[in-house]
Amino acid sequence: MNKARRIIGIDPGSLRMGYGIVDLRGNAVTPVAWGVIRLDGGEPLSDRLYAIHIELSKLIKEYVPSEAAIENVFLAKNASSALKLGQARGAAIVTCRTHGLSVYEYSPKEIKLAATGYGAASKEQVAGMICRLLGVRVQIPADASDALAMAFCRAVTREVPS
Amino acid sequence: MNKARRIIGIDPGSLRMGYGIVDLRGNAVTPVAWGVIRLDGGEPLSDRLYAIHIELSKLIKEYVPSEAAIENVFLAKNASSALKLGQARGAAIVTCRTHGLSVYEYSPKEIKLAATGYGAASKEQVAGMICRLLGVRVQIPADASDALAMAFCRAVTREVPS
Repeated sequence: MNKARRIIGIDPGSLRMGYGIVDLRGNAVTPVAWGVIRLDGGEPLSDRLYAIHIELSKLIKEYVPSEAAIENVFLAKNASSALKLGQARGAAIVTCRTHGLSVYEYSPKEIKLAATGYGAASKEQVAGMICRLLGVRVQIPADASDALAMAFCRAVTREVPS
Repeated sequence: MNKARRIIGIDPGSLRMGYGIVDLRGNAVTPVAWGVIRLDGGEPLSDRLYAIHIELSKLIKEYVPSEAAIENVFLAKNASSALKLGQARGAAIVTCRTHGLSVYEYSPKEIKLAATGYGAASKEQVAGMICRLLGVRVQIPADASDALAMAFCRAVTREVPS
């Protein structure tokens, strides 16, 4: 039997970060862990970014994934929210790389396609389908199901790191 | 005589990162090092962000600053450039924090005021004045003089970390 590949999907934001971890063994994708880390919006920026680093480092040390999947967002509501999102992404990506993980980026369309077979699926359709595909029978937060969908997308995609 | 406080100013971007390091001893601010690290725009995002981490880590290990100053930018041309700038800032801030540095943010106006006494000074005025103030008699790249101005602003400002 093949050794499992463990993948962490990360949905970083300035107020919370979703994560979802899956194993890929042969063609079977199984869920390992998921959750949402809440960041204190009242803290200074550098403390919040450092909290992303600390919390994500803990997850990587606990679950030891070898690959990370993250959504590449080219559109944001405005320049201010894009800056905040970018800072959180930069913190998360550097943290993954310092722990030796390969980082793969996927567009929202690629993630939706992987999860539902339909590139314009709604967030609810993606959340519902990813839980069915992974056999997750409990309600999970939207940021966590988004992150699971990213990890799932990586698991079923074969291309080289972006 | 007081022990010197060593401060690194960082001007992170998606294609290059300026840095400027100063010592503050009593009321005297002296330049220690400055430069610009060029990033390969053809490389994948995660490689470029990791390069920021690696190069900035080298500078921190070589010069051992205890504080970092960075410009807080709330305005960017558009959401796409804000995202890129944010990612570079996130990478730089997390790197500083993992090395134990305190990170201080200053607005463009605060930096201009510290360097020239005039909050609406042009970039050229800031560059010219910061070189005069620090006794730098050679031409230095704009990204490096911007970073020196950030470090200088931190050196002459007394407030707590942001």
